[in-house]
Amino acid sequence: MTVKAFGAHAGDKPLEPMDINRRSVGPHDVGIEIAFCGVCHSDIHQVRSEWAGTLYPCVPGHEIVGRVSSVGAHVSGHKVGDLVGVGCIVDSCKRCDDCSDGLENYCDHMVGTYNGPTPDAPGHTLGGYSQQIVVHERYVLRVSHPEGQLAAVAPLLCAGITTYSPLKHWNVGPGHKVGVVGIGGLGHMGIKLAHAMGAHVVAFTTSESKREAATALGAHEVVVSRNADEMAAHAKSLDFILNTVAAPHDLDAFFALLKRDGTMTLVGAPATPHPSPEVFSLIMKRRSLAGSMIGGIPETQEMMDFCAKHGIVADIELIRADGINEAYERMLKGDVKYRFVIDSASLAA
Amino acid sequence: MTVKAFGAHAGDKPLEPMDINRRSVGPHDVGIEIAFCGVCHSDIHQVRSEWAGTLYPCVPGHEIVGRVSSVGAHVSGHKVGDLVGVGCIVDSCKRCDDCSDGLENYCDHMVGTYNGPTPDAPGHTLGGYSQQIVVHERYVLRVSHPEGQLAAVAPLLCAGITTYSPLKHWNVGPGHKVGVVGIGGLGHMGIKLAHAMGAHVVAFTTSESKREAATALGAHEVVVSRNADEMAAHAKSLDFILNTVAAPHDLDAFFALLKRDGTMTLVGAPATPHPSPEVFSLIMKRRSLAGSMIGGIPETQEMMDFCAKHGIVADIELIRADGINEAYERMLKGDVKYRFVIDSASLAA
Repeated sequence: MTVKAFGAHAGDKPLEPMDINRRSVGPHDVGIEIAFCGVCHSDIHQVRSEWAGTLYPCVPGHEIVGRVSSVGAHVSGHKVGDLVGVGCIVDSCKRCDDCSDGLENYCDHMVGTYNGPTPDAPGHTLGGYSQQIVVHERYVLRVSHPEGQLAAVAPLLCAGITTYSPLKHWNVGPGHKVGVVGIGGLGHMGIKLAHAMGAHVVAFTTSESKREAATALGAHEVVVSRNADEMAAHAKSLDFILNTVAAPHDLDAFFALLKRDGTMTLVGAPATPHPSPEVFSLIMKRRSLAGSMIGGIPETQEMMDFCAKHGIVADIELIRADGINEAYERMLKGDVKYRFVIDSASLAA
Repeated sequence: MTVKAFGAHAGDKPLEPMDINRRSVGPHDVGIEIAFCGVCHSDIHQVRSEWAGTLYPCVPGHEIVGRVSSVGAHVSGHKVGDLVGVGCIVDSCKRCDDCSDGLENYCDHMVGTYNGPTPDAPGHTLGGYSQQIVVHERYVLRVSHPEGQLAAVAPLLCAGITTYSPLKHWNVGPGHKVGVVGIGGLGHMGIKLAHAMGAHVVAFTTSESKREAATALGAHEVVVSRNADEMAAHAKSLDFILNTVAAPHDLDAFFALLKRDGTMTLVGAPATPHPSPEVFSLIMKRRSLAGSMIGGIPETQEMMDFCAKHGIVADIELIRADGINEAYERMLKGDVKYRFVIDSASLAA
């Protein structure tokens, strides 16, 4: 099946309209008419070849929501007409310990929604900047938000689960004081989710101008991290820090805010490493620096249901597909509150 | 009370004999006739002013064993004639969460056995390279090893607890595959302890020449870390890594050996940071980099009892106090298997 998409033919080329093929729906597949697709910073890294190994043509997009248009004979969990989502994962080995534990995101053979290996033409997966997608049922999420919120649900599939998974894994909840570093696509979801989990949330930003916005998102306190006095007021007081900032920055300043046994988890992946943390920052209070990557399929469904129950969606700006190159430029300047979402209907025009 | 000691008057001076004062035994104090004192790499850092804030005269030594010579009126847990030990901690606030949890090592007001603040003359604590010491009962450990092993028990008070605490905290035991990086004063204890805890122990060394020695210490496998093939054979297979190497080195090579959710804990404190780890090393398998510093008093007692039960002591080379400067030079060349211990009787000569 040929469908319209937006992608790039090379790392130094802008994204442009293209026709791509989708496989026919197999026995375990779900065919999805895409309604909206969020625009993640990873999309830029991949399509511009800032990460190694980009294959072209490259169609990014892994924050996909839409409606089921067909299902294979053995599909039981989804039916035509259902609202569904697809995140960063469209396949994995289904047999290893990671898959068995529902942590397909850590499977050595996890297949990303774009740029992953597939027998389908052209030999690598093509993402959600397109009209349709065909995905194995295991990797399709149920959406129980009201349909009117669908565009703002899309970013939950990456930004939502990327922040929800570590918050849950490190047991964030009532009685915890949690820091969220960075107030962008990931950080704004981290604030909303940590707040809904019952934690006391301290947002950290480099911009005085984001103070009010962070409060509106649910932060109980906001710290401008360039202000040493504001930082010092939180010394050794945080149970957990979710650090969403991909740009290299001083981690020691944040370690100093963690209690004994506190963990700072990185979910942003910088192109170059952060300045090396002082070993004493870790040793003195038995602190940890960790990383976390998206989340498994069962916890992604749990997150979707949690967000529906708590009325949580992303704050978005809806764009047409042909506005994607301009949107990238604005993202690189931090000029988006907080996620662009492509209206897939614009692909038909 | 004036006692003989060995210490330095400046960072660039050798250690020499000196007389120091010990306070009189207060109601909660234990007076100890020191029999042996282990020589820790921290002693060199401190006495040579390689760490900030060394106060002179400096008498190092925090791996102390000996016999109780007097007790204060309110001391109930120790009596004259008992074999006891003193480690890195001689005081703390006794009131904070860390102290309440028996983790005095993380108390903000922890007082080190040397170079810590004290009302006693000369205003900072003086360590175990001396004939006697007076310590609050809370920080005195019971020794249940046979007396003939006493010299080899001394290093348990720092090298032992520094490795035991993280192995216990990260739940090392049967069914776990554990790496121990570095086979020196700390690492040789780490191998013995992890083995006794029932783990499968893989020792990592840069020296082909240490292969047999590591096996003799209890390692089930030995990897020469410069050998990429040997390293690759353990990819993604370790539950936990205890990294005892203080010299800056590539951490990513070891992260690659950790399973999902694995932790590498640093217990060596380099003067300069390690090369910064790649964020992807952490993110890809939800790995953690942690630090751990010595251990609390209750777990130090637990470690002493565990070692007595399992017949574990350090491998040592006994020296006279006046051999300390030469011993330091040999330690800096890695020429010791695996710990020097001062025979305190040599101070009287």
